Amino acid sequence: MSDGNNARLLDPLFTTDAMREVFSDRATLQGMLDFEAALARALVATGQAPAGVLTAIEAACHEEAFDIASIGYAAASAGNLAIPLIAQLTRAVNRANKDAGAFVHFGATSQDAIDTGRVLQIRSGLALIEAELARISERLAALASEHAGTAMAGRTWMQQASPITLGLKFAGWLDAIERSRTRMAEVKLRALALQFGGSVGTLAALGANGTEVAAELGRDLKLAVPAISWHAHRDRMCEVVAAAAIAVGTAGKIARDFSLMSQTEVAEAFEPHEAGRGGSSTMAHKRNPVGCAVILSAAARTPGMVATMLAAMPQEHERGLGGWHAEWETLPEIFLAASGALYHLSAILDGITIDRDKMLENLSAQSGLAMTEPFTVALTKFESRENAKKIAEALARTAAESGQPLRDVILKDPQMQKFFKVADVEHFLNPKNFNGSAQAMIEKVLAARMPTASPDAQKKERSK
Amino acid sequence: MSDGNNARLLDPLFTTDAMREVFSDRATLQGMLDFEAALARALVATGQAPAGVLTAIEAACHEEAFDIASIGYAAASAGNLAIPLIAQLTRAVNRANKDAGAFVHFGATSQDAIDTGRVLQIRSGLALIEAELARISERLAALASEHAGTAMAGRTWMQQASPITLGLKFAGWLDAIERSRTRMAEVKLRALALQFGGSVGTLAALGANGTEVAAELGRDLKLAVPAISWHAHRDRMCEVVAAAAIAVGTAGKIARDFSLMSQTEVAEAFEPHEAGRGGSSTMAHKRNPVGCAVILSAAARTPGMVATMLAAMPQEHERGLGGWHAEWETLPEIFLAASGALYHLSAILDGITIDRDKMLENLSAQSGLAMTEPFTVALTKFESRENAKKIAEALARTAAESGQPLRDVILKDPQMQKFFKVADVEHFLNPKNFNGSAQAMIEKVLAARMPTASPDAQKKERSK
Amino acid sequence: MSDGNNARLLDPLFTTDAMREVFSDRATLQGMLDFEAALARALVATGQAPAGVLTAIEAACHEEAFDIASIGYAAASAGNLAIPLIAQLTRAVNRANKDAGAFVHFGATSQDAIDTGRVLQIRSGLALIEAELARISERLAALASEHAGTAMAGRTWMQQASPITLGLKFAGWLDAIERSRTRMAEVKLRALALQFGGSVGTLAALGANGTEVAAELGRDLKLAVPAISWHAHRDRMCEVVAAAAIAVGTAGKIARDFSLMSQTEVAEAFEPHEAGRGGSSTMAHKRNPVGCAVILSAAARTPGMVATMLAAMPQEHERGLGGWHAEWETLPEIFLAASGALYHLSAILDGITIDRDKMLENLSAQSGLAMTEPFTVALTKFESRENAKKIAEALARTAAESGQPLRDVILKDPQMQKFFKVADVEHFLNPKNFNGSAQAMIEKVLAARMPTASPDAQKKERSK
Amino acid sequence: MSDGNNARLLDPLFTTDAMREVFSDRATLQGMLDFEAALARALVATGQAPAGVLTAIEAACHEEAFDIASIGYAAASAGNLAIPLIAQLTRAVNRANKDAGAFVHFGATSQDAIDTGRVLQIRSGLALIEAELARISERLAALASEHAGTAMAGRTWMQQASPITLGLKFAGWLDAIERSRTRMAEVKLRALALQFGGSVGTLAALGANGTEVAAELGRDLKLAVPAISWHAHRDRMCEVVAAAAIAVGTAGKIARDFSLMSQTEVAEAFEPHEAGRGGSSTMAHKRNPVGCAVILSAAARTPGMVATMLAAMPQEHERGLGGWHAEWETLPEIFLAASGALYHLSAILDGITIDRDKMLENLSAQSGLAMTEPFTVALTKFESRENAKKIAEALARTAAESGQPLRDVILKDPQMQKFFKVADVEHFLNPKNFNGSAQAMIEKVLAARMPTASPDAQKKERSK
Repeated sequence: MSDGNNARLLDPLFTTDAMREVFSDRATLQGMLDFEAALARALVATGQAPAGVLTAIEAACHEEAFDIASIGYAAASAGNLAIPLIAQLTRAVNRANKDAGAFVHFGATSQDAIDTGRVLQIRSGLALIEAELARISERLAALASEHAGTAMAGRTWMQQASPITLGLKFAGWLDAIERSRTRMAEVKLRALALQFGGSVGTLAALGANGTEVAAELGRDLKLAVPAISWHAHRDRMCEVVAAAAIAVGTAGKIARDFSLMSQTEVAEAFEPHEAGRGGSSTMAHKRNPVGCAVILSAAARTPGMVATMLAAMPQEHERGLGGWHAEWETLPEIFLAASGALYHLSAILDGITIDRDKMLENLSAQSGLAMTEPFTVALTKFESRENAKKIAEALARTAAESGQPLRDVILKDPQMQKFFKVADVEHFLNPKNFNGSAQAMIEKVLAARMPTASPDAQKKERSK
Repeated sequence: MSDGNNARLLDPLFTTDAMREVFSDRATLQGMLDFEAALARALVATGQAPAGVLTAIEAACHEEAFDIASIGYAAASAGNLAIPLIAQLTRAVNRANKDAGAFVHFGATSQDAIDTGRVLQIRSGLALIEAELARISERLAALASEHAGTAMAGRTWMQQASPITLGLKFAGWLDAIERSRTRMAEVKLRALALQFGGSVGTLAALGANGTEVAAELGRDLKLAVPAISWHAHRDRMCEVVAAAAIAVGTAGKIARDFSLMSQTEVAEAFEPHEAGRGGSSTMAHKRNPVGCAVILSAAARTPGMVATMLAAMPQEHERGLGGWHAEWETLPEIFLAASGALYHLSAILDGITIDRDKMLENLSAQSGLAMTEPFTVALTKFESRENAKKIAEALARTAAESGQPLRDVILKDPQMQKFFKVADVEHFLNPKNFNGSAQAMIEKVLAARMPTASPDAQKKERSK
Repeated sequence: MSDGNNARLLDPLFTTDAMREVFSDRATLQGMLDFEAALARALVATGQAPAGVLTAIEAACHEEAFDIASIGYAAASAGNLAIPLIAQLTRAVNRANKDAGAFVHFGATSQDAIDTGRVLQIRSGLALIEAELARISERLAALASEHAGTAMAGRTWMQQASPITLGLKFAGWLDAIERSRTRMAEVKLRALALQFGGSVGTLAALGANGTEVAAELGRDLKLAVPAISWHAHRDRMCEVVAAAAIAVGTAGKIARDFSLMSQTEVAEAFEPHEAGRGGSSTMAHKRNPVGCAVILSAAARTPGMVATMLAAMPQEHERGLGGWHAEWETLPEIFLAASGALYHLSAILDGITIDRDKMLENLSAQSGLAMTEPFTVALTKFESRENAKKIAEALARTAAESGQPLRDVILKDPQMQKFFKVADVEHFLNPKNFNGSAQAMIEKVLAARMPTASPDAQKKERSK
Repeated sequence: MSDGNNARLLDPLFTTDAMREVFSDRATLQGMLDFEAALARALVATGQAPAGVLTAIEAACHEEAFDIASIGYAAASAGNLAIPLIAQLTRAVNRANKDAGAFVHFGATSQDAIDTGRVLQIRSGLALIEAELARISERLAALASEHAGTAMAGRTWMQQASPITLGLKFAGWLDAIERSRTRMAEVKLRALALQFGGSVGTLAALGANGTEVAAELGRDLKLAVPAISWHAHRDRMCEVVAAAAIAVGTAGKIARDFSLMSQTEVAEAFEPHEAGRGGSSTMAHKRNPVGCAVILSAAARTPGMVATMLAAMPQEHERGLGGWHAEWETLPEIFLAASGALYHLSAILDGITIDRDKMLENLSAQSGLAMTEPFTVALTKFESRENAKKIAEALARTAAESGQPLRDVILKDPQMQKFFKVADVEHFLNPKNFNGSAQAMIEKVLAARMPTASPDAQKKERSK
């Protein structure tokens, strides 16, 4: 039976300790207990319960005191965790103050406790994600500046296309990370909402005082108080996981690029070297990109989980059957995977090794055809764009088939000799001279970046 | 071969004409042509092309003039639609003005035209979705007001639980629809963005003038101009489809409720009756809930499509291989399904038939046990909450096992006779007296509703 | 850190102890150790290792002796579990016999141990699923026989359509379960296959002896020996999970039916009553269908997981990056969910309560229109089928609108009085007289059923 | 409105004409009409209808005669295609023979016609898939034989690992394709089944003759006759699409490998060169791997579609609401994508260009570290495996850090000079001497291959 910790053997690889704690079984129970304690305070504050019951209830709302195994087994019969938890809680409260038990969970339904507890976990989970995104953003901003002039091959359809700068690539990654940061801020506005409706959403057990208690409860828990309960309307949860999965997808895009750059034949960038990292059980030379593996794995796993959450939306009537249950294991799994993916991305960027020479050298691969476009552009001074493309295509083919560098083919061509001096060719074949607006784009991305907390604040956040 | 219309036999059932037109093959081509025309204007406006070329280019940018079949076949070899489209366009432009062809597509790459064209389609598609959501919102607001006092059974876990009002149910639906309206407004801010980066995102073919042309192009097309191109960063597209799928999920939740209420034995609400609607090939009496079938079908289909979009995010380098292609058929399919689902929801709400008497009658099903909670609450005047629940449980069991109404069981019970007069029992067993904050919640939802355009404006939008 | 048990709080609700043990972290390690022990035996049997090393290796291959926490943390750096496990194993073996460590894992790669260990877990998992399916099959066969004559409403599009028998419904469920049993038998033929290829699939470290060792290893582990290793070809895994998800889908279909029959207003069948089962924290009368919730939840979760497995198939080269990793948590989750769903289905069928009277009574709902089709058929003795349908439609409408029973409407109609005597009407409106081939179909399904093991053998299987 | 052809602009890229025809709207109607014609024959054969009606019914069952637009629009109201189709059919039959209309569709329900028609389409679709798989199998068998001795780098975790042969890679691909062929054969046994149950599955309208008519109908259509109808049990459909998606996944794995080998820096294998294929709108030198893009796109799209089919399984009662409808567009889409993916795979393999020299050259990349494992094995003659790995690791590091070839580092090392002569080093660093059982594995795969039809028969199949 669960010990409340429910760590899995592969958790150190696939997630972070901080996120695992946020969604541990113990934290799930504590989330519900935080709801119950706050409800008691709200009942007292609004005159629905005598002040005297508060001490006993608040004192009992700590998960350490609960027999977690028996709650799990009882949930198998009750159908949810709240019923056995509240039963144990009520007994404990009554032991301390025999009048107080009557006010435990008063006015609420199981789902109020479960959903609000989950929202509290989501709040912590989103804070971790935002902090990691901020760290990634900072690191990428530094890298984009540093490598604004580092030439490398731009690649499309998995083929070298035309030159870019490494800074531009980093800026593209950064821009997408920034959008994820904005998205996180937006979904919080809707998602961090109290769930409180009682058995069927009317708060009828509280008579006419339901909305007053709800307002107080939301204030206490620092959660938005929705106009109406949302027991069977799960769009809030779906939008949170979609935003998390999109962040993972962006991490996956970066890891895809990174793993392609790390290939033996490409060898442009590498994950941090650490003793034992990415070794092989048989091959002494291997340095496997472990971080990329984790990120790409998360990017493969989260889409199906989001589909589960979306497919579970048509929940029946006031509180549904099965759809709600499908969320219980799925949502935490998405946060766990997201946390692992972002952590590994952060770690890769912290310890990244970049080989600028190899980047330049790769631009000479396959006869240096990646410089065909600047050559074509240069030709348009003398020829129509259509003709220029045809000429460039022909010389590129010659280079490819003969294995000669494009440079040599151009220089040897009688017509080209008429158009260009050697220095001209050197100039337009130099990747540094074909960057267009790359620098301007990098600057725009950097200028638009959301502010991040100080590094110290970040460290604190992460170790929480 | 496609006639550009590419209507499917089941389109009248599953989608709307308006959305089908937005994502028709012809509209896809026109989207790209709109990009090309705007690019020509931007090139002229920024001095990158002579003003004289504009007439020829703009005149040629109309999809009617293109041989759609040959574009489709050529795309099979080229790998995308832009290459053959631009080849045909350039030839047409050159026929009109032999100097103008050179400025067609100048500075852009295929994906710039394809993505921006798609964004233009998304803009039209989102407008249709927003208009339908607004109509649904209006109708639900009216229904929530009208039925604020209509008593019915609240149901949880597919069992009658405690009474609610039909107005509360409508208000819950409305609140979720409103969140979708907000979400649509938010995703537009990021998603309706220009794609313009040239072959590898540097706009190098435009030398130092790339960002200026981009700014002008965005202004012309009324699209946001991003800091950097996003060819291989697909989070914008993913967030659009996630928002659409969430709206469909909410429609699915409503259709689930509705189809349950329409069951023969429940018979509380019905889809509009029209001749031929929902008939059967063999059963003369059948009135199948066709609208619900369409909505639930859309809610079953969109999650997998969103998963596809998310799973396709890790696209390689500057422009990816396969992942981008996976979006081409998937994104329109989501819009088509969403449009059909929301249209049917709108139509159901327009012609809904409600049987208030049956709603009340159903509260008497199974001995009227749905009134157990108010009975329990009433008991707490005399007993502890724990005892009250035990007593209520015992009498509910007696009622269930004997088949007698709970009312009779209470009235016959000696202890209850001590607590309650007949009038008391009548009072607390009247569902109208156990609505808690339902009315207040309805009012809050209505007050928070986003404004909608006038009905005339809506009609116009819809018929576009 | 994981204690190797990695039970979660909701496991008692969502899965079975038996399946949890099969896929526990400890069992995962033991699977790899079983591979390593068998490999040692195969090396000795084929002369690749001296017989003397066997005792030390076999003695060390027990998971209890390993420091599970340190393996988990080391996996975070190594990228998989095998590397730290084999390092610990080798040290342990060397302590017992300093010559033996050299033969640990000899010729194999990490993925050989991980995949083969996983296949051994799958074998145990499939055995549990097959045993549960057999139990369900037996129970459904008994129920189909018992209720071959129990009349109830057949329902299509969530509306009463025409009468069926409960036996027919059970037989339909049974037939689908039987197909799942056949599927399980088929996928085992391909899926229960050895993984053994060495670093890149050539078994090169074993020189010319690779295939001989592989043959011996397969014989030892009782696994099929494939022609070639399948490190990056994951179709075997995908077909296993697809088959499991299809079985869950069938369970979901049954739970959907069951939960609809259990609704308060329908009240035809109920989950087993047990103290505390399906109670509510606030409503004393509630008996929530907990089993259905679990099954429907599993049916909502497994499709997304299968999508993950399928989407992860395009794994790179000889052994992939990320795709393989995505399977590690996903595949066990599918087995856990499947086990829980099938267990709950089994439990529901064991303790099912059926209300035959209510089934009959429901056929009278909505004027008894469910008997419209037999009436139409009876009319075809006097009228064309087209006319018969029109007449029936008109009288059905009269019944529906007036609220009178169809029977009364028919008996009062002058034309009908010419066609039918009262006894005729009684006859064709009796659902027992409109069952067509239902009985024959039930018999066919029962006759085609695969044999099941004795109940004792089943019990044993289950408690393993 | 649909013209029955419903081709899309991107169909030439994403699918095949043959498969598009199988699932065209016209073919969908014809499938239903084939059911109706066969039903008429079965009714006559079993004495349920007079022989005289057959001519009129059979003559009318040709889709060309139907007004497809009106059927589509009527379906929007009826909720399915069968109702308007059968209405038109009945009118047409009655025009030819006024007694015959009464026997159209007699005993059947809409879903019988729709599902059986769909099964007939699936039969044609599976035949196309099987034929393409057979062609791929043949081509791969030839390539595996031809390249059994072609050395190349084996790559794991996207890093060079140890040498393999290209033949081994092809054999691995082939082995997976063969499993898909077997799977296709298996699913057909269950999936190609008649659907025939009447309104609620009892065939009640046929009285006691239902099973006899069903048997005759199955015989006529050459479909398996199931024991019971399966209207709301969709496992057959799910298993078909899962098998198709697995085949696509295998194609995706191959395309992933291929696109990685085609990268500019790797340059080991290329898609067929054809004029215009894979060109760029701006870069004259580009040869984009269009086939891989299509295959990877299909591999990204089908998992979500399979998830939709699985998630739609819990269909209500005798015939469901929404779940069934979700299949209508999803299943054909899977076949269309599968057909396109397999066609492109076939085309790539037909015209593949392989650069053996570059494969060998790539083995020298990064100091030739891919030969570290054979070096380690060679060391085990002198050192323990543990020590050997440590030594190899150290020398590999030296090579990597200094940029010297591993060969030179070994030859310069004093200790190594004691162990090995130059010829020894040459021998173990020659990739041809470290292939282990590769050749034996290739032979086993080839020997296990299922027979394929003659090339002529294949060509015929394909052009059908």
